[in-house]
Amino acid sequence: MAILDKIVALAKRRGFVYPGSELYGGIGGFWDYGPNGVELANNIKRSWWQAMVHDREDVVGLDSAIIMNPKVWEASGHVSSFTDPLTECKVCHQRFRADQPDEIEAHTDKHRHEGQKSVAWTEARQFNLLFRTFVGPVEDNSSLAYLRGETCQGIYVNFLNVLSSMRVRVPFGIAQIGKAFRNEVTPGKYLFRVREFEQMELEFFVHPREATERFTYWKEERLRWHLSLGLQKDHVRFRQHESTERAHYAADSWDIEYDYPEWGWKELEGIANRTDYDLKTHGKWSGKDLSYSDPLTNERYIPFVIEPSVGVSRLFLALLIDAYKEDDKRAFLQLKPSLAPVTAAIFPLVANKPQLVEKARSVYHFLKKHFVVGWDDRGNIGKRYLAQDEIGTPWCVTVDYDTLKDDTVTVRDRDTTKQERVSIDRLKEYIGAKL
Amino acid sequence: MAILDKIVALAKRRGFVYPGSELYGGIGGFWDYGPNGVELANNIKRSWWQAMVHDREDVVGLDSAIIMNPKVWEASGHVSSFTDPLTECKVCHQRFRADQPDEIEAHTDKHRHEGQKSVAWTEARQFNLLFRTFVGPVEDNSSLAYLRGETCQGIYVNFLNVLSSMRVRVPFGIAQIGKAFRNEVTPGKYLFRVREFEQMELEFFVHPREATERFTYWKEERLRWHLSLGLQKDHVRFRQHESTERAHYAADSWDIEYDYPEWGWKELEGIANRTDYDLKTHGKWSGKDLSYSDPLTNERYIPFVIEPSVGVSRLFLALLIDAYKEDDKRAFLQLKPSLAPVTAAIFPLVANKPQLVEKARSVYHFLKKHFVVGWDDRGNIGKRYLAQDEIGTPWCVTVDYDTLKDDTVTVRDRDTTKQERVSIDRLKEYIGAKL
Repeated sequence: MAILDKIVALAKRRGFVYPGSELYGGIGGFWDYGPNGVELANNIKRSWWQAMVHDREDVVGLDSAIIMNPKVWEASGHVSSFTDPLTECKVCHQRFRADQPDEIEAHTDKHRHEGQKSVAWTEARQFNLLFRTFVGPVEDNSSLAYLRGETCQGIYVNFLNVLSSMRVRVPFGIAQIGKAFRNEVTPGKYLFRVREFEQMELEFFVHPREATERFTYWKEERLRWHLSLGLQKDHVRFRQHESTERAHYAADSWDIEYDYPEWGWKELEGIANRTDYDLKTHGKWSGKDLSYSDPLTNERYIPFVIEPSVGVSRLFLALLIDAYKEDDKRAFLQLKPSLAPVTAAIFPLVANKPQLVEKARSVYHFLKKHFVVGWDDRGNIGKRYLAQDEIGTPWCVTVDYDTLKDDTVTVRDRDTTKQERVSIDRLKEYIGAKL
Repeated sequence: MAILDKIVALAKRRGFVYPGSELYGGIGGFWDYGPNGVELANNIKRSWWQAMVHDREDVVGLDSAIIMNPKVWEASGHVSSFTDPLTECKVCHQRFRADQPDEIEAHTDKHRHEGQKSVAWTEARQFNLLFRTFVGPVEDNSSLAYLRGETCQGIYVNFLNVLSSMRVRVPFGIAQIGKAFRNEVTPGKYLFRVREFEQMELEFFVHPREATERFTYWKEERLRWHLSLGLQKDHVRFRQHESTERAHYAADSWDIEYDYPEWGWKELEGIANRTDYDLKTHGKWSGKDLSYSDPLTNERYIPFVIEPSVGVSRLFLALLIDAYKEDDKRAFLQLKPSLAPVTAAIFPLVANKPQLVEKARSVYHFLKKHFVVGWDDRGNIGKRYLAQDEIGTPWCVTVDYDTLKDDTVTVRDRDTTKQERVSIDRLKEYIGAKL
C-alpha cells in the first residue's frame, strides 16, 4: 500500500479527516476535519497566530467577512482574470483544465482503451474560479456577490480602518486566518487541491525601498517556522517563481515547497512581494486615498506589501506525512507534542480493579486541568498504545499496582516506546517540560 | 448619545468591529472584526471550546465544510421550508419581511409623509434564506449547492464517521464552531441580525428516555457558562418557546435571552430538544442506518439530540454591552480579564528617558512570554490609560523612576483605577493569579 493511501486511511479511521458529505456520496473538493483533525488544525492555527501576531510587536490580527462587496473582486482583477483554461472532452463532455496535459492525456487514453478511435477536445476557454452567489431577495446582477478567493483582499480594504483605529506605523503587518473558496475545475490530490480551504495570510506593509530586505526576512522567518513545527529539513525547499509564472504585479515570488509522496515538490507556502499593486488598485477603484503618511518624515507613499500565505490543509497534510512512521510492530504519528490532538492518555492497568481505576481517574482529572488528556480502559495496554500511537499521543500514563504503593506511574514515550516511572506529584512538570 | 451608538462608535474607533467592505460603501449584513475584535472573538471561542470539549469527557469536536452535498439541505427541509415571508412595497419595490409589521408600518408611514396617498404591498411569498452557488464548471441544477444555513447538519452527516473512528458511546456530543450564512431579507440591528455569522453548536446524542433530563442539564449548564463570562445575572433570562413558535420536530425549545438596549430581550442562545428528527431524516434520505447499538444492552435506537447553539457575534455584542461602563472621566470595558484583547499594557513613564524605556522594554519582553501584552510610550500616562480602558485592558504596568531604584512597578487596575506597587519578580504571578 502506498504511503499516501495509508495516511488517507489512517486519517479517516482515527478521526482526522472524513470526505465531505460522505453520507450522501460526497462532494468533490470538500473535506471535513474529524475530532482529532480539528484539534491538530487548531494547534496549527494557534501556533501560526502565536508566531505571527502575539509574539510580535509589528503585526495585528483581523477577521473579515467571506462575502464582500463585489467591487472588491472587480478591483482586484479576480472577476476578469482569476481563471483557469477549460477544455471539454467531446466524447463524454467531462471538463478538464487545458493547462494540465497529463490529465487530458490520461483521459484520452481511457477512451482509446474503450475503443474510441478519435477523442477530440473543445478549444480552451477561460473559466472563472470565484464561486458566485446572490445577496438579498433579488437574484440579478445588482445582487451578485462572490465567495472570497483569497483572504488578503479583506485586509487591503481594511487598511485605512486599521491605520486609524490601532497604533500602527509602517512597517507593520495585518494577519488573518479564514476560509477561502476556489471553484477548481478538477479538485483532487486529497487535501492538496480543494475548493474550500483555510488560509493563514500576513500582509506586511513596508516602505518600497525596504521591500526586498523584508522579503528576504519573511522568507527565512517562514521557513524557520515550518521547521519549528517539526517538518524535516530535507522535505522542504525554496523555489523562486519564473518571471512568466508569477502574477504580473508581483516583483518577486517564492514558494516554500514540500516533497509530497507521489506528487513530488509542491507549494506549501507562497511568499510574494506584491509591490503597491493592491493598495494602488483599491485606491483607484474606491476613490479613497490609501497612501500612508510617515509621522516622522512626513513622507507620503503607498506601501509595498510582502505576503507570506499558507493553506491550513496543505500544511496539515504535510505534517501528517512527515509524522507518519512505521516499524515492524506499529504505525505512529511522530507529531511535535504541542501539535498532537491529545497530549497524554491515562490508563488504569486493568479496568476491573476499582482501586486502580479510581487512582487513574484522579490522575486523569488532575492532568486535565493543565493539558488535553485522553482516557482509555478498554482491552489490553498494548492495544491502547497502538491506538494512541496512531493519533500521535506523545505520552501514555499507566496506573498499575505499584502506583498504589508508591504513587508513581509509568510514562510510555510514543517515539521510543520506552517506559519511565514518574512520581505523580512530578507528572505535571515532567510533561510540561517536554512539551 | 444612546448607549448602543456609543458602543458601535467605540467598536469602530478601537478596532473591534468595522462595517464589511466599508471602502466600497459597505454590504448589508456583513461585518469585519478588527485587531481587538478578533482577539475578543477568539477568546470567546476558546472559552467555549474549553468548556464544551476539553473540560469534558463526553464531547468531541468537528470542523465540517461550509459547502456540502445539496441533498443534505433537501433532507433537512431547508430547501423547501427555510424561508421568510416576503412582501414588496408597490411604490418603491423595496422588499421586507411580511412577518415584521413594525418595519412595514414604518415604511408605509415614510411614503405617506412623502405624500403618497395609497401604499400597497404585494401578497407575501416565501423567500428561501439559503445562499445558492454552483460547484464545478457547469452552472445548472446538477451543480447547485448551498452555503450552510446552520453548522449542525455537518455534525449529523458525520454521526457514523465519528461513531466508527472515535471511542464514543451514547450519551455523547459533537461540538463545532464555524461560519453559517442566511440571506436575511432585512439584516440589521448591528451584529444581531447578520447574513454571515459564526455558530458554536453542540449536538448531544442521548437515549430518548433521557432527553428531558439532559435538556434540563444543558439549559442550566449553558446559563452557568454565560454568567462565567461575566454577563450580569439580571441581563439574561430563560424563555420557553411557545409550541407554535418552535420547529415542528422540536419537543422543547428554550432561549437564553439577553436584555439588549433599544431592542429588549432577544435570543442569545437557543437550546432545543430536536428529538430523533435529524438522524431519522438523514437516515431515510441517505438510505444509511443511523441508529445506535448500545454495546452493553444491545438495544438499537436512534438517539435524541439536545442542541445548545449560540452565535459568536451575538455573544460578542452582549459582552461589549455588558462590559461598557462610564464614569465622569472615562468610558471603559469591564471585560472579564481572560476575554480582554490585551491582558496587560506596559508603559515607560516618559518616552525620552532611555533608562526607563530600556527597563520597561525588559518588563514587556518578559511578560510577553506569558500573556498578550501591549506597549505604549506615546503622550502622557493619562491618555494611555484612557486608550487601554476603552479596549478593556485589565492592567497597566508603568515603569517609573522608583523602578530603577527598587525594581517595582505600578500596576493600575482598570475597574478601580487604583494603583499598586508590585515587585517585578512577582509581576507574572500577580497577573496570573488575577487572571
